Amino acid sequence: MTKPVYVLNGPNLNLLGIREPHIYGSTTLADIEAMCRAKAEALGMPIEFRQTNSEGTLVDWIHEAIKGGAGIVINPAGYSFNSVPILDALKVFRWPIIELHISNIHKREAIYHTSYVSYAATAVIAGLGAHGYPVALECIAEMLKQGEPGR
Amino acid sequence: MTKPVYVLNGPNLNLLGIREPHIYGSTTLADIEAMCRAKAEALGMPIEFRQTNSEGTLVDWIHEAIKGGAGIVINPAGYSFNSVPILDALKVFRWPIIELHISNIHKREAIYHTSYVSYAATAVIAGLGAHGYPVALECIAEMLKQGEPGR
Amino acid sequence: MTKPVYVLNGPNLNLLGIREPHIYGSTTLADIEAMCRAKAEALGMPIEFRQTNSEGTLVDWIHEAIKGGAGIVINPAGYSFNSVPILDALKVFRWPIIELHISNIHKREAIYHTSYVSYAATAVIAGLGAHGYPVALECIAEMLKQGEPGR
Amino acid sequence: MTKPVYVLNGPNLNLLGIREPHIYGSTTLADIEAMCRAKAEALGMPIEFRQTNSEGTLVDWIHEAIKGGAGIVINPAGYSFNSVPILDALKVFRWPIIELHISNIHKREAIYHTSYVSYAATAVIAGLGAHGYPVALECIAEMLKQGEPGR
Amino acid sequence: MTKPVYVLNGPNLNLLGIREPHIYGSTTLADIEAMCRAKAEALGMPIEFRQTNSEGTLVDWIHEAIKGGAGIVINPAGYSFNSVPILDALKVFRWPIIELHISNIHKREAIYHTSYVSYAATAVIAGLGAHGYPVALECIAEMLKQGEPGR
Amino acid sequence: MTKPVYVLNGPNLNLLGIREPHIYGSTTLADIEAMCRAKAEALGMPIEFRQTNSEGTLVDWIHEAIKGGAGIVINPAGYSFNSVPILDALKVFRWPIIELHISNIHKREAIYHTSYVSYAATAVIAGLGAHGYPVALECIAEMLKQGEPGR
Amino acid sequence: MTKPVYVLNGPNLNLLGIREPHIYGSTTLADIEAMCRAKAEALGMPIEFRQTNSEGTLVDWIHEAIKGGAGIVINPAGYSFNSVPILDALKVFRWPIIELHISNIHKREAIYHTSYVSYAATAVIAGLGAHGYPVALECIAEMLKQGEPGR
Amino acid sequence: MTKPVYVLNGPNLNLLGIREPHIYGSTTLADIEAMCRAKAEALGMPIEFRQTNSEGTLVDWIHEAIKGGAGIVINPAGYSFNSVPILDALKVFRWPIIELHISNIHKREAIYHTSYVSYAATAVIAGLGAHGYPVALECIAEMLKQGEPGR
Amino acid sequence: MTKPVYVLNGPNLNLLGIREPHIYGSTTLADIEAMCRAKAEALGMPIEFRQTNSEGTLVDWIHEAIKGGAGIVINPAGYSFNSVPILDALKVFRWPIIELHISNIHKREAIYHTSYVSYAATAVIAGLGAHGYPVALECIAEMLKQGEPGR
Amino acid sequence: MTKPVYVLNGPNLNLLGIREPHIYGSTTLADIEAMCRAKAEALGMPIEFRQTNSEGTLVDWIHEAIKGGAGIVINPAGYSFNSVPILDALKVFRWPIIELHISNIHKREAIYHTSYVSYAATAVIAGLGAHGYPVALECIAEMLKQGEPGR
Amino acid sequence: MTKPVYVLNGPNLNLLGIREPHIYGSTTLADIEAMCRAKAEALGMPIEFRQTNSEGTLVDWIHEAIKGGAGIVINPAGYSFNSVPILDALKVFRWPIIELHISNIHKREAIYHTSYVSYAATAVIAGLGAHGYPVALECIAEMLKQGEPGR
Amino acid sequence: MTKPVYVLNGPNLNLLGIREPHIYGSTTLADIEAMCRAKAEALGMPIEFRQTNSEGTLVDWIHEAIKGGAGIVINPAGYSFNSVPILDALKVFRWPIIELHISNIHKREAIYHTSYVSYAATAVIAGLGAHGYPVALECIAEMLKQGEPGR
Repeated sequence: MTKPVYVLNGPNLNLLGIREPHIYGSTTLADIEAMCRAKAEALGMPIEFRQTNSEGTLVDWIHEAIKGGAGIVINPAGYSFNSVPILDALKVFRWPIIELHISNIHKREAIYHTSYVSYAATAVIAGLGAHGYPVALECIAEMLKQGEPGR
Repeated sequence: MTKPVYVLNGPNLNLLGIREPHIYGSTTLADIEAMCRAKAEALGMPIEFRQTNSEGTLVDWIHEAIKGGAGIVINPAGYSFNSVPILDALKVFRWPIIELHISNIHKREAIYHTSYVSYAATAVIAGLGAHGYPVALECIAEMLKQGEPGR
Repeated sequence: MTKPVYVLNGPNLNLLGIREPHIYGSTTLADIEAMCRAKAEALGMPIEFRQTNSEGTLVDWIHEAIKGGAGIVINPAGYSFNSVPILDALKVFRWPIIELHISNIHKREAIYHTSYVSYAATAVIAGLGAHGYPVALECIAEMLKQGEPGR
Repeated sequence: MTKPVYVLNGPNLNLLGIREPHIYGSTTLADIEAMCRAKAEALGMPIEFRQTNSEGTLVDWIHEAIKGGAGIVINPAGYSFNSVPILDALKVFRWPIIELHISNIHKREAIYHTSYVSYAATAVIAGLGAHGYPVALECIAEMLKQGEPGR
Repeated sequence: MTKPVYVLNGPNLNLLGIREPHIYGSTTLADIEAMCRAKAEALGMPIEFRQTNSEGTLVDWIHEAIKGGAGIVINPAGYSFNSVPILDALKVFRWPIIELHISNIHKREAIYHTSYVSYAATAVIAGLGAHGYPVALECIAEMLKQGEPGR
Repeated sequence: MTKPVYVLNGPNLNLLGIREPHIYGSTTLADIEAMCRAKAEALGMPIEFRQTNSEGTLVDWIHEAIKGGAGIVINPAGYSFNSVPILDALKVFRWPIIELHISNIHKREAIYHTSYVSYAATAVIAGLGAHGYPVALECIAEMLKQGEPGR
Repeated sequence: MTKPVYVLNGPNLNLLGIREPHIYGSTTLADIEAMCRAKAEALGMPIEFRQTNSEGTLVDWIHEAIKGGAGIVINPAGYSFNSVPILDALKVFRWPIIELHISNIHKREAIYHTSYVSYAATAVIAGLGAHGYPVALECIAEMLKQGEPGR
Repeated sequence: MTKPVYVLNGPNLNLLGIREPHIYGSTTLADIEAMCRAKAEALGMPIEFRQTNSEGTLVDWIHEAIKGGAGIVINPAGYSFNSVPILDALKVFRWPIIELHISNIHKREAIYHTSYVSYAATAVIAGLGAHGYPVALECIAEMLKQGEPGR
Repeated sequence: MTKPVYVLNGPNLNLLGIREPHIYGSTTLADIEAMCRAKAEALGMPIEFRQTNSEGTLVDWIHEAIKGGAGIVINPAGYSFNSVPILDALKVFRWPIIELHISNIHKREAIYHTSYVSYAATAVIAGLGAHGYPVALECIAEMLKQGEPGR
Repeated sequence: MTKPVYVLNGPNLNLLGIREPHIYGSTTLADIEAMCRAKAEALGMPIEFRQTNSEGTLVDWIHEAIKGGAGIVINPAGYSFNSVPILDALKVFRWPIIELHISNIHKREAIYHTSYVSYAATAVIAGLGAHGYPVALECIAEMLKQGEPGR
Repeated sequence: MTKPVYVLNGPNLNLLGIREPHIYGSTTLADIEAMCRAKAEALGMPIEFRQTNSEGTLVDWIHEAIKGGAGIVINPAGYSFNSVPILDALKVFRWPIIELHISNIHKREAIYHTSYVSYAATAVIAGLGAHGYPVALECIAEMLKQGEPGR
Repeated sequence: MTKPVYVLNGPNLNLLGIREPHIYGSTTLADIEAMCRAKAEALGMPIEFRQTNSEGTLVDWIHEAIKGGAGIVINPAGYSFNSVPILDALKVFRWPIIELHISNIHKREAIYHTSYVSYAATAVIAGLGAHGYPVALECIAEMLKQGEPGR
């Protein structure tokens, strides 16, 4: 297995841990990337770790994964709640997709409750904090080991 | 008439025909572009044929058409259903606009039923498959021949 | 191919072009019938062209088409928006169905936005004016040539 | 008791069993009429068995039943879901009314879930297939035997 | 002024006064017609008084009025609440339209609250009982005297 | 019959005819009062004609009518659409109530469509212009002559 | 066929006929059980007849039927309208299910209109009173005779 | 740390793997319990593993956990979607709560989309299949190690 | 008067005052029971004081009250908001019912706003804290003294 | 404690007991005032008892209470359901507020179900009839004795 | 320009700054009036500054402005959200109208989100605190200088 | 104070004043930039003035402001109504944010009524035309002078 798993991060996640660490914690996206790389190495599973604030770029990267990815872990952040293009792109992907949210979005205001991405994801994980990233990678690895299709 | 008609394609349409041709058919966006160019030549009507996954780029291209286009054929794909910026840009365009969907979106799930783009389009064509593109170009040509305003 | 394509027109379409031609244009339903007959002849495809103000009669005619029609072009007008009987009848028809609206119904008031007929149509064309009729006939001819099923 | 029970069938029911018997079964409306006549004879209860695709005709027939019917079994089909005129006519009928649907409409799409006719019916039977007709006649007979009012 | 005013009555109104006069009163539609004819004669204003249970026929009659009527008094009864064809037909009529309901529909169940016909009517009268008919005719006469357009 | 009929006018009706007569017509509320007084005299039916911009005052006046009024004609204007106090007061009144709107409120924006007052009114008249006032008084007189209760 | 049909009764049905027989009739649940046993014997079809006020117990009994039942007649009473667990349990059952309501629930207040159980039932019978029980058993017997699957 | 983590399973989960293993897989709830016990032993974290079809019993068990539990993993199944009592009980629990669904509920019908339990859960995991159980236990262990509060 | 008043407490109320008394106050359900017993003795009115987390048990207890209770004070807690079975049971009870909530539920989140139980209760008291219990018992006593029916 | 408790009564409450005492009972607002004064004297707690039909006056009186009141008992009647000004005024009051309704508003039509005032009230009492007034005063006295803040 | 600009303040604004200045700030309505008068003088633009808790009085004052005002700055406070009379009055005013809210109402609870007044205002300013008043006056002056119509 | 205020303009604002100046006015975005620069200089407050059609770029620029901006004036145009990413980015910004709309969006169609951006803005200004820009800059300056936090 040499195709990478794509770990895609949406808008504003680049701000993690930088501002007001006494409130949001001091884990930065770079820390999360490091956690993911460590876990990926342990699993012998290459990853592509990326972040963008642009909806179109997320779609481009999902297309890239469609062509050469083994799985997708996606934290769509603010694009979860109204992006049909991301949903449509993910629907074409035929391997495991895990949608990840750092917080439990269902405890937030109503505009954060309905994720379009969930309609295409194999599994959804919300509320595990930064720890959710390595958990998601382990689950992808497990799914790939089982030869389990994305849907 | 030397101003071109813009044929604008939204997110994920670059995937057409590439993956699983036994399911989605083998017509690619390149094939569609070729069909459009053939038809445009037959009609003596130049075209600009483009695709992007980015909402902002679609707005940019509509602005370009506002400055120098004779008509717009737009398949907004996933941006049909929530893009106020595309709607607002199209509202400024004063010549014929045809909104095009390859499938009949009204037979799909509810999130695909209400296109904001339809509020600005002169006409809407859905469900004719790839064949809808040359049909749309012919209709634009007919409208221009009639001197019919976009709205 | 000797089975005709049914061109069915719903309520109020018999008023086209008669009243206030400076407002609605001077194209009458008779003119549209002539345009359809000319196009049908050119395509070598016989048609049945009809109009009624009665929902039940529209259902009867769809049944007639189920028994001996090659395709249906239907402008359901005011019955588009609440007629389950017409929807149910069209669902039984196994060849191409094109739903046609002279204006772009999505630009009108909300009660004109959701057509039940669209749930059964192969394709939908709205906003091309009277010109939509010959376009629809050409599209039916194209679909039949491709051996494409209605759904 | 010589007044007949009206067995009224709405739009598209005349298509039953004719097309694609491998899918919808081979029971035709004529078969159902025969089943009803046999059951009616067994019960010593005359029936009027009719079908129409017209809403107005259904109202006319309910009026006929108001003047001389002992009960009504009605399968309003596509008119179940939006016909206030049929509801209003049935509200005037003072003897038993059974609303009948061949399939369980509640398992279908949302537009088939809310029957206006149910607001006036004594009882509702859905999902028993063609067999629902003789069952409904037996129930009407039982109600009449009990001297039970329609409402 | 020799063009007649059309007094159009929708479904179930033919049952007025016939059944259970101790409940609904003994005024029949024939009585109402007589009241209308007396009032029309007093006003020197010819009328066409009709009733039908068929939506299509109501549309046909409105078309007849469009060609030769001076005004319309319409009691659409059960077709008030979902008939887009009747609304569309009335929208073409350019002289006064009075929508009439014998009872105050706003005091009834919710399905009787929203009349599509009101979107096209010049005026709406509800709850005056049979007396509403001569009142409506007087109002039409007054409007015509004022040379007041329908809308 | 010496108890007066109350003719109650709600907010902003004092502006009628004063401003921009070329748009709204030149009929003032004083003109309407004169029309009402003339009609009342002709009918031998005393009236109390009043206008206020205050919801509480309208309630006070309805209480006054409850104690000594023969009927109520009320144009609640802007208080039609959300005043439970006015509705509750009118519900106590046991004689005829006619709700009056100068324009056909159902043709206006959605916030003007649902009048709470209609839930208590005997009859509703909308769209007859200033002429609706004498018509309403005649109808009240007719109801009182018939000994018809308000509800 | 020795597997029994389960006749399951939900909350409050144990109160039938006990209180105020002049209002609700004097038929008790024991009477209904006797009617069911008589009919079952006539059909040569064993039954399990039960009642509980507990949602969990209803689920338990459906599980019991899944293991050894030939069919289910269920009157879920108050649990019809919000019990996903009962719906989920019934979805697993692969033989005929008849949902039964003594009254026509569609004539009651809105909270009684939408039964989740209907999404899983083969057929729905409402409004036949106590008589609905033997009717349902006959229909189950008929379905089993036809070898008809539950869904 | 000797207080156990409660692994609570709601209605119908006792049916897992028993029926039609070719469809739902052959993993039974007993298998899942074994997976959980193995993982718990590896983590040195005692568990209470239970299943019930009763809402009240789930509330009782959450109360038990409130008194002596270190964390809760709950698969509320059919009670996810309308149980305020379970939500209220969980809100009192001050240690980590993981809501678990075997399938991705967001891909199912709308009635399965909104879990009340999510309003109280620390984290939500859906769609990982039986594998989600050991993952949830690991996450609870991690949270407890971090001294992370439930909310 | 020797029939007792039932004081029924729903889910989670057994937790009152036990946990975190500095937050929720130190009044336990046992304290409330003692307050109720003292008040009952003062009023010479026997009571049955109970608590359960089970919906079915609440229904059972209401049935018990139907057979031998003089009144019901019910704090349905989490079952207030979706229990049709409890509503249906209470509707059968013909003596005073007071629905009691310790807090003012209308100030909480929307899912706590609409109590089905209120549709059957004689009176509703919310927000008086534990003190609401003796107040409710006094009100029941007053109602019984007045010979006031439950509804 | 010499600051009075304000007992504020909204629109139409001045009509209590005057009209049709056989229906609404013969208790007048003057009787209720007397009951309140007797109870107030017994509690040694001065009151201000008032009634108005004006929303603005209710706001004025709440302001008066803000300046010098010890508590508020308010029966907002018809202003309960849409008055943001009354809600806003009450939100400023920092002592106990009891919202009082003579009938159980939740059993009435939907427009009476949602009281804005409840969002600011300490407690809500509905359905105790005139007796609710002295009960509310006792509860205010109890709250003040406990030194309990309004919110 | 000698006609004054009306600065109209709605319910509860008279409480500003009086109570709990450590929370709401110490700016009173008198302070705001002083700020407005200073700004008005600087602009050479006379003002009428008023406050009332009465809806009817606000309507009266808008009428006064219609007769002799140059512009309106209105803080409708609690009447923003449901007052059709104020909306209707403002619609008649033909000069600039600025709707002012001290706080950003869109950040508050949903009942404060939709202002009817905004449908008639030229401009809306929310969230600038007391400073919004002089800003609004400057903007009115600017509009009047530009000869800009209200709408 | 040397950190600049960001003046961010969303999609289609680059078209201002270019097309059809007789309709939209001749003020271009360049003119607005000049007005802003003049005002900024007068206030001694540096600004960054930008425009983009891309949602992601707007998010990037807000991030830039988070790192080094003193305040934000944002006209989000078409992204106001559905952009959670922009809302999320603005929520992180801790200094004053003014949301600006050239027209009064509340007078437009419903899709333009609810701005997500308002949930994060300190203040909202709509309908002042181009003049709103310098007004917003002055207000930001005033807020910064007061040391007022953004929220």
